[in-house]
Amino acid sequence: MKVLVINCGSSSLKYQLINMETEESLAQGLVERIGIEGSILTQKVPGRDKYIIEQPMVDHKDAIKLVLGALVDGNHGVISSMDEISAVGHRVVHGGEKYSESVVIDDAVMESLEECVKLAPLHNPANIIGINACKSLMPNTPMVAVFDTAFHQTMPKTAYMYPLPYELYTKYGIRKYGFHGTSHKYVSAECAKLMGKDIKDVKIITCHLGNGASLAAIKDGHCVDTSMGFTPLEGIAMGTRCGNIDPAIVTFLMNEGKMTAKEVDNLMNKQSGVLGLSGVSSDFRDIEDAAKEGNERAILALNVYNYRVREMIGAYAAAMGGVDAVVFTAGLGENAIETRAEICKGLEFLGIEIDDAKNNVRGKSTEVSKDGAKVKVFVIPTNEELVIARDTKELTSK
Amino acid sequence: MKVLVINCGSSSLKYQLINMETEESLAQGLVERIGIEGSILTQKVPGRDKYIIEQPMVDHKDAIKLVLGALVDGNHGVISSMDEISAVGHRVVHGGEKYSESVVIDDAVMESLEECVKLAPLHNPANIIGINACKSLMPNTPMVAVFDTAFHQTMPKTAYMYPLPYELYTKYGIRKYGFHGTSHKYVSAECAKLMGKDIKDVKIITCHLGNGASLAAIKDGHCVDTSMGFTPLEGIAMGTRCGNIDPAIVTFLMNEGKMTAKEVDNLMNKQSGVLGLSGVSSDFRDIEDAAKEGNERAILALNVYNYRVREMIGAYAAAMGGVDAVVFTAGLGENAIETRAEICKGLEFLGIEIDDAKNNVRGKSTEVSKDGAKVKVFVIPTNEELVIARDTKELTSK
Repeated sequence: MKVLVINCGSSSLKYQLINMETEESLAQGLVERIGIEGSILTQKVPGRDKYIIEQPMVDHKDAIKLVLGALVDGNHGVISSMDEISAVGHRVVHGGEKYSESVVIDDAVMESLEECVKLAPLHNPANIIGINACKSLMPNTPMVAVFDTAFHQTMPKTAYMYPLPYELYTKYGIRKYGFHGTSHKYVSAECAKLMGKDIKDVKIITCHLGNGASLAAIKDGHCVDTSMGFTPLEGIAMGTRCGNIDPAIVTFLMNEGKMTAKEVDNLMNKQSGVLGLSGVSSDFRDIEDAAKEGNERAILALNVYNYRVREMIGAYAAAMGGVDAVVFTAGLGENAIETRAEICKGLEFLGIEIDDAKNNVRGKSTEVSKDGAKVKVFVIPTNEELVIARDTKELTSK
Repeated sequence: MKVLVINCGSSSLKYQLINMETEESLAQGLVERIGIEGSILTQKVPGRDKYIIEQPMVDHKDAIKLVLGALVDGNHGVISSMDEISAVGHRVVHGGEKYSESVVIDDAVMESLEECVKLAPLHNPANIIGINACKSLMPNTPMVAVFDTAFHQTMPKTAYMYPLPYELYTKYGIRKYGFHGTSHKYVSAECAKLMGKDIKDVKIITCHLGNGASLAAIKDGHCVDTSMGFTPLEGIAMGTRCGNIDPAIVTFLMNEGKMTAKEVDNLMNKQSGVLGLSGVSSDFRDIEDAAKEGNERAILALNVYNYRVREMIGAYAAAMGGVDAVVFTAGLGENAIETRAEICKGLEFLGIEIDDAKNNVRGKSTEVSKDGAKVKVFVIPTNEELVIARDTKELTSK
């Protein structure tokens, strides 16, 4: 059985074709600049040269047509016909309160996704467009929606309710939802495996540190808190997002800075985080380079980033009544050796101690804590596509 | 030497006259509804009946005139003439980055206070009005400004900078300032005394839990982080304030809820916190009563409140690399036995353990942790007026 995994952004699309017998990736690709001049598809197949197609794509349907073409291409493809794709798994950002698990897509699901657009106006519309485009091209192939929010639906009300008028929850659905759920779910399960324990017996803090970043507290195998909230803006500092700030700053900027709500939104989402503090870049490699040259704002940006993750680890240990394992994942978590070391500095009182030699690793699943440390620290590469494919297989094989 | 301590709000004024030889309070009082129908002054002198004056007061000058009259009153007063007041100490909410200590008020200081109005538009104007009223009535009496923000000025840049564009700091002064500094300073010093240690040798988390509420992390005798931020809205949940929320909620409410910035500000400051969640009251006694009768939203409000303080304690332990003592102070911190117990539940992994018998105490300076617990927990009644009077004495005696 082969499953195609699709992750649609507003003008981009990531895909991966996975052989579910071996769980091996047959091909993966990225389509960029959909509907914009300079549309381009790049496909990678293990052991082969990159396959690049540059041609106009007016919409996501065009893009998916091209993806399917690339997958069955005589020279560059990996399957002989579209019929080999047994099912398609779609990453969907927001499932609201309705979906605590993945679901086979039918008309009722599509309606629910439309209802969630208000909650995720930047993300769900692209997901819906992608699903519709796939459905029109592969009308007989079953499709599954896998939600970024689903894993976090186990949070207790104490964790997901904001201290705001209760009516904002009933009227608008304002509560903490959390994101990156697929990743937190995957790496926490891998962590328990690496520890040789039942996930129900360990308290895990997962740190998904990519360009977007969030932490999750996982107890009894369930998410009990996570740092992203009503939107993916809340929580720790990120590449370009501010995370937690005094909410009064938003209205201050409108009153004193004469900014519109849209401008402040843009500032908080696109111009803040380590980019805003450093003035250098949202890419940690650039900031680290600048910091090494003595750029004070670059040093400050790294310090603030690490400090806020460190505090959040402390907060989640408190939320769970302790911690047994900490997991670093995603681009930065898997690769930034110094960032992991700096975050953990000062957490020895919790039993968290990094072994510098073991920590000298990138993108590999491994333990990096000192021998005998009370809390195990792991690097675990995330694999959201595999989780999506597994859920898709499970739901469509029934 | 006798020092008069003044704390001006927009329509209220608290005062206390303190004998600095004995540090004993000679009289304290509250003026309410200044400039509003039904103005009233209530003065308490130890061992005597309350002295109440109900008469119109058009402004703060009227109010202070009445305060001075009450203090020298032949029947109800405690001094024979205003000349006995050697100095006046004023509580000032915001000292910006300029004041990390109290200061004798002169024209230059008044100018700085005016500059800080932008940062504290709800508080500093009342403080300034109070100082000016006092100066016109007691032109030859030295006056001192004691800032709520001063104690927190030791925070490292890593703690006080938000992950926002750096220019917002240089242009508008947007950073974390912190408030309740006088209280955090006082109870942390008392805590070290009770432990029989130099404050430089202990890591203390002070929980000032009143209607407004904030935590501070105090290491080496200095504040290294605090939960209130650019304004007193940030941090844990409060009586009517939301504290930390996803900042995107602010713009969501403006876009989807068609609210103005002012309305959202009002909602976050006046209609949120435990009041907003419970729908019952901002007074914890009312909420606890409702919770005991099974009111689910009241139970939720208490749970959310306790949870957020608990998480912040974990975060500050992480910020300091450990914690030796936790202090509860202010209205709720000093009196709410169950709140203290609930907050500490689940923090045993840090060495925080409340002794239920010892914790059965209200408004008394005492240790409430279990014998032998690694972290000492204290209840310490705050005394901001005494700190203000001490600073005033010290600065005006030079």
